Amino acid sequence: EKVVPHKSSDQAGKSSACQGCPNQNICASGAAKAPDPAIEEIRQKLTSVKHKILVLSGKGGVGKSTFSAHLSHALASDDSKEVALLDVDICGPSIPKIMGLEGEQVHQSGSGWSPVYVEDNLAVMSIGFLLSSPDDAVIWRGPKKNGMIKQFLRDVDWGEVDYLIVDTPPGTSDEHLSIVQYLSGAGIDGAAIITTPQEVSLQDVRKEIRFCKKVKIPVIGVIENMSGFVCPKCKNTSQIFPPTTGGAQRMCEELNLPLLGRVPLDPRIGRSCDEGRSFLTEVPDSPAAVAYQNIVQTSQRAARGQRLLYPVLPVSLQGWGNWRAAFM
Amino acid sequence: EKVVPHKSSDQAGKSSACQGCPNQNICASGAAKAPDPAIEEIRQKLTSVKHKILVLSGKGGVGKSTFSAHLSHALASDDSKEVALLDVDICGPSIPKIMGLEGEQVHQSGSGWSPVYVEDNLAVMSIGFLLSSPDDAVIWRGPKKNGMIKQFLRDVDWGEVDYLIVDTPPGTSDEHLSIVQYLSGAGIDGAAIITTPQEVSLQDVRKEIRFCKKVKIPVIGVIENMSGFVCPKCKNTSQIFPPTTGGAQRMCEELNLPLLGRVPLDPRIGRSCDEGRSFLTEVPDSPAAVAYQNIVQTSQRAARGQRLLYPVLPVSLQGWGNWRAAFM
Repeated sequence: EKVVPHKSSDQAGKSSACQGCPNQNICASGAAKAPDPAIEEIRQKLTSVKHKILVLSGKGGVGKSTFSAHLSHALASDDSKEVALLDVDICGPSIPKIMGLEGEQVHQSGSGWSPVYVEDNLAVMSIGFLLSSPDDAVIWRGPKKNGMIKQFLRDVDWGEVDYLIVDTPPGTSDEHLSIVQYLSGAGIDGAAIITTPQEVSLQDVRKEIRFCKKVKIPVIGVIENMSGFVCPKCKNTSQIFPPTTGGAQRMCEELNLPLLGRVPLDPRIGRSCDEGRSFLTEVPDSPAAVAYQNIVQTSQRAARGQRLLYPVLPVSLQGWGNWRAAFM
Repeated sequence: EKVVPHKSSDQAGKSSACQGCPNQNICASGAAKAPDPAIEEIRQKLTSVKHKILVLSGKGGVGKSTFSAHLSHALASDDSKEVALLDVDICGPSIPKIMGLEGEQVHQSGSGWSPVYVEDNLAVMSIGFLLSSPDDAVIWRGPKKNGMIKQFLRDVDWGEVDYLIVDTPPGTSDEHLSIVQYLSGAGIDGAAIITTPQEVSLQDVRKEIRFCKKVKIPVIGVIENMSGFVCPKCKNTSQIFPPTTGGAQRMCEELNLPLLGRVPLDPRIGRSCDEGRSFLTEVPDSPAAVAYQNIVQTSQRAARGQRLLYPVLPVSLQGWGNWRAAFM
């Protein structure tokens, strides 16, 4: 059996299994071992960004973009804070619509791409701003998606920012590996994990939590979305996505993670998202908006605690090499 | 500016921009232009499979796996039909749980991998059967996912099959391009597109429909899931994901596509999925089960019509090259 050594190994390009590979010379020279210089460029670019938070879920359609958007709105409601929201869902960018920015374009300046501002202290970037129509499909394999994420991190002129919130697509693949790799120099404060109550969702979310452990991203906590529905007519509560295995609460107990809160289903959330308005200011007294505000406050406290417990661990190149060798 | 010619172009490996690229010799030799031999191997392997149907959506969490599973159950309820269900969601495989097959393993036989049988005439394959624990994360970039999809198509011993249903992850990226490319010799009958009623979902679904047009996959029709919720106590209907732009019906009118049906939200669907049982036999008289049965019958009729209107168009290598050159 031919076992090709990993490009980071000392045997790279030198094993008999490397014979005939077009990359043999590059591997043998050691050039392939060198970290991507973009990691250092991004570290320098993002020295002006204090906190970097990922919003993750293994499952699609659980409300990652809704949470990312409303977390950004909530943080930006403090005028003294500068907030940036980056959408790395390259094939399904929902952030421009949810933030009410459809049709906006990115401008190029001397210092990079200018993000689109919703308010003075809330900047947004998404591939949606680079498409000629919101229905345009982005039919790209991994390397092109990764290149776009690199550009978003290295070439966007965010300025001085307190919080950079990164909305991600579902899964544990190219986008997730790239954001972690490119931010390995700059450091990631932690990840907020979103789920819905049913086991089919929790199963994928446990995979995402394993991903965080592998790449050494602290989990700030878990948010359970679509957690019950109160009938507007009779006020009866229905568990539309039943927590057949105990929901996020049981999972958090088992994995020793904080449950940051539960957000009930509310048709006004979907409507606000479609109309590009913040649900938090549209219906601030609704149970869902109150749940969101509590989660944001808990997240801020948790993030501060997390920084003490887990002094920001940039994924070390050593660590990256180890797990990359194991999983790639 | 250096413009690198595409590997399928006559200039591949010969342009000045190719100087120094480790793949220059391969490109110049023309070897990179040749189609993957797996396409022909898969064509031969799948001559025993009559119909191949993809289940697609740009959006996650709209019910692709639930629909794929229940379409398979419904088709297999006719004892004279052989049905196969293939899960190509590599990072978030839900099919083993929904089909009640968690913990099952794939067996290797002389003629390939044996799928897992739910019933005599219903075979299933998923990466979930290859994991040591259902919580294991599959942290893979595109090429490894593509290799797994190739193996599923080329190495699984499906036998004589009437319908192969392929459940996919959200998006328009590696898994989607690979399934279309690897089935380009065998031919795809068409795609069923799943959405929920709100515009944030429809926007991603329109991207998926554009993808189908680009790769010349006929759209069999659209299914609207999570379409209203009837309170079990007072029978009032709530639009939890409001169709703010007219829902799937308006989209189908605009794009001239058949709307195959609408399935209401029902907590018993989620519960059946978590418990690995078919919702269609658990609560056959529920409005959601009736909607599903109607959709399956309409799909069968539509698929027959579609085959007449659109005589199965294997994506031609020419066509593939054209759009690949444009989008990759």
